[in-house]
Amino acid sequence: MAPPVLSDCSACAATRFLPFRRAVSSEAFRFQPSVSLTLKPSSLIAVRSISSDGRSSSAVSAVTMNADTSAKVIDGKLVSKQIKDEVAEEVARMKEAIGIVPGLAVILVGSRKDSQTYVRSKKKACEAVGIKSYEANLPEDSTEEDVLKHISAFNNDPSVHGILVQLPLPRHMNEETILNAVSIERDVDGFHPLNIGRLAMQGRYPLFVPCTPKGCMELLHRYGVEIKGKRAVVIGRSNIVGMPAALLLQKANATVSIVHSQTKNPEEITRQADIVISAVGVANLVRGSWIKPGAVVIDVGINPVDDPESPRGYRLVGDVCYEEACEVASAVTPVPGGVGPMTIAMLLSNTLESAKRIHNFK
Amino acid sequence: MAPPVLSDCSACAATRFLPFRRAVSSEAFRFQPSVSLTLKPSSLIAVRSISSDGRSSSAVSAVTMNADTSAKVIDGKLVSKQIKDEVAEEVARMKEAIGIVPGLAVILVGSRKDSQTYVRSKKKACEAVGIKSYEANLPEDSTEEDVLKHISAFNNDPSVHGILVQLPLPRHMNEETILNAVSIERDVDGFHPLNIGRLAMQGRYPLFVPCTPKGCMELLHRYGVEIKGKRAVVIGRSNIVGMPAALLLQKANATVSIVHSQTKNPEEITRQADIVISAVGVANLVRGSWIKPGAVVIDVGINPVDDPESPRGYRLVGDVCYEEACEVASAVTPVPGGVGPMTIAMLLSNTLESAKRIHNFK
Repeated sequence: MAPPVLSDCSACAATRFLPFRRAVSSEAFRFQPSVSLTLKPSSLIAVRSISSDGRSSSAVSAVTMNADTSAKVIDGKLVSKQIKDEVAEEVARMKEAIGIVPGLAVILVGSRKDSQTYVRSKKKACEAVGIKSYEANLPEDSTEEDVLKHISAFNNDPSVHGILVQLPLPRHMNEETILNAVSIERDVDGFHPLNIGRLAMQGRYPLFVPCTPKGCMELLHRYGVEIKGKRAVVIGRSNIVGMPAALLLQKANATVSIVHSQTKNPEEITRQADIVISAVGVANLVRGSWIKPGAVVIDVGINPVDDPESPRGYRLVGDVCYEEACEVASAVTPVPGGVGPMTIAMLLSNTLESAKRIHNFK
Repeated sequence: MAPPVLSDCSACAATRFLPFRRAVSSEAFRFQPSVSLTLKPSSLIAVRSISSDGRSSSAVSAVTMNADTSAKVIDGKLVSKQIKDEVAEEVARMKEAIGIVPGLAVILVGSRKDSQTYVRSKKKACEAVGIKSYEANLPEDSTEEDVLKHISAFNNDPSVHGILVQLPLPRHMNEETILNAVSIERDVDGFHPLNIGRLAMQGRYPLFVPCTPKGCMELLHRYGVEIKGKRAVVIGRSNIVGMPAALLLQKANATVSIVHSQTKNPEEITRQADIVISAVGVANLVRGSWIKPGAVVIDVGINPVDDPESPRGYRLVGDVCYEEACEVASAVTPVPGGVGPMTIAMLLSNTLESAKRIHNFK
């Protein structure tokens, strides 16, 4: 990719975070849909329509393709609520039928404020759907053995169906050793290489799919986006989002390309895609000119940019220049309120799935 | 991909095997190299030059890029011999230093003629480099338990460093159960999902890389083909070749796209690639028009096509229309004599590597 330069995106107010040159393209956009986007009858959900002046209005309606320049907003907040409701219903049915309550254990080492916030919100989300949550809070100077002892205890606790080690771990610990200690049957994060291997292989299926990429796929499915035979580009190749997202799209029969830091012409390649998933962590990297008219854009990035008008002095934006994307794409996830809320919903869904599998409950 | 139609490739004599429409392309080819192709001083090897009339001449010379239309032939037979020589040297050094001889066990179930031939040639290749080979020949009507018992015995035999189950297994056996029984430390085929997962993940490394895709990469490396930052297309997504080849190219920092049976415009996508690996098993699928001028083409396919002039009534061709590829690409592997001989060479290399690791021999 090209070296960092300033950009001229006035709408984004985030020029200093934009490390990629906006390639000059003489190609005229053809404003026609590239992806068939129709809602399944079973999954009618609310969508907000963004007009070209950037204002949104909420309404429950089916998403249908049109040839104008206003993208539909894929509402992750709404879909995640829908999923949480479904999980709550299943948790209640399971408890009623066999007296089992799914349990999620979270291990937190140290006292990072952000990690504490994440753990708190996971606990709260568990409570809301009736999943029992367990917590092990260990001091920063714990040894690897301390952590492994807790993992082992949770592995052997029949009331725990999912185990999650909050990352990052303190520097003196080996992340790989610790993550590998989580039993594969309880690896609700889906990060175990055995799960990733099964995800990559045809005819094999992982016990768990990593939560964020699973959330991206769920958004595509619930908005009726056809994946089979479509060109998909994943920007970023991290172990927890980009790479497994590419494997999932591939399993769903898309033709997938992965764009990463060594890619020489990311804009040109991305512009070929009917479906774009960006998970690279660079504010407003993906400009309107990167997007094929009519494409569906899933923005995983959550990046803080300076904003003197915000009480906190900053605001959160995605990897995608939202306003520009809305002019070109057929559907876009906003940040916040797009993929973000899906991750915890998928964690709850994975924990329920695990409890059902362990107790053979259909 | 488009439905099967007859093609007009007279050079290939294989029209009946060609299931893909040759797309009409008005794009003029720019005959300029797309891939930097220079031999490393340490790996000067013989290359055969193919002239436009299809005849080849052998000569030892450095591969250098040129702008004419004759592709260099990537000589897998020669490289595999080079690798076998290197393995033999290391086997001798190990035996001399610590008295350990690497051992490879092959399990063959049933009496398929082709499988017997493969096993025989593996045994012969082992002997040639000084690796000890072990064999378990089980009758067609063996039970899964019989096979698992043999695998377990080999897993626990300290003189065995690699175990290979010859595929296909009889239909009454579960391939996954049997392959998973091979201990990960002896999985010289690299098919275990844990190995595949590690191959897919950044910062993780498999104990073994599957032999055929490893052979493709070795050819690229030994011919000095730069991979980082290049566009690569892998045609086919099998667990044993296409998918791991894509993961390997990705780990080497190429920008990778996988073309498969559900891809709508395989020709257009393939033509964007600086490096093409085809592993789909369709004779002459990849026509000259699919190839970007100057690209490097690795052809994994080995497909029989009718040939009344051959004593056997057929001859072997690759996935790539060789004569056409030679006119457009900068370098091509022939079939036979390209990737084919590399697979066994990589199996020997993996077995040696395993013995070194188990005995901590550097």
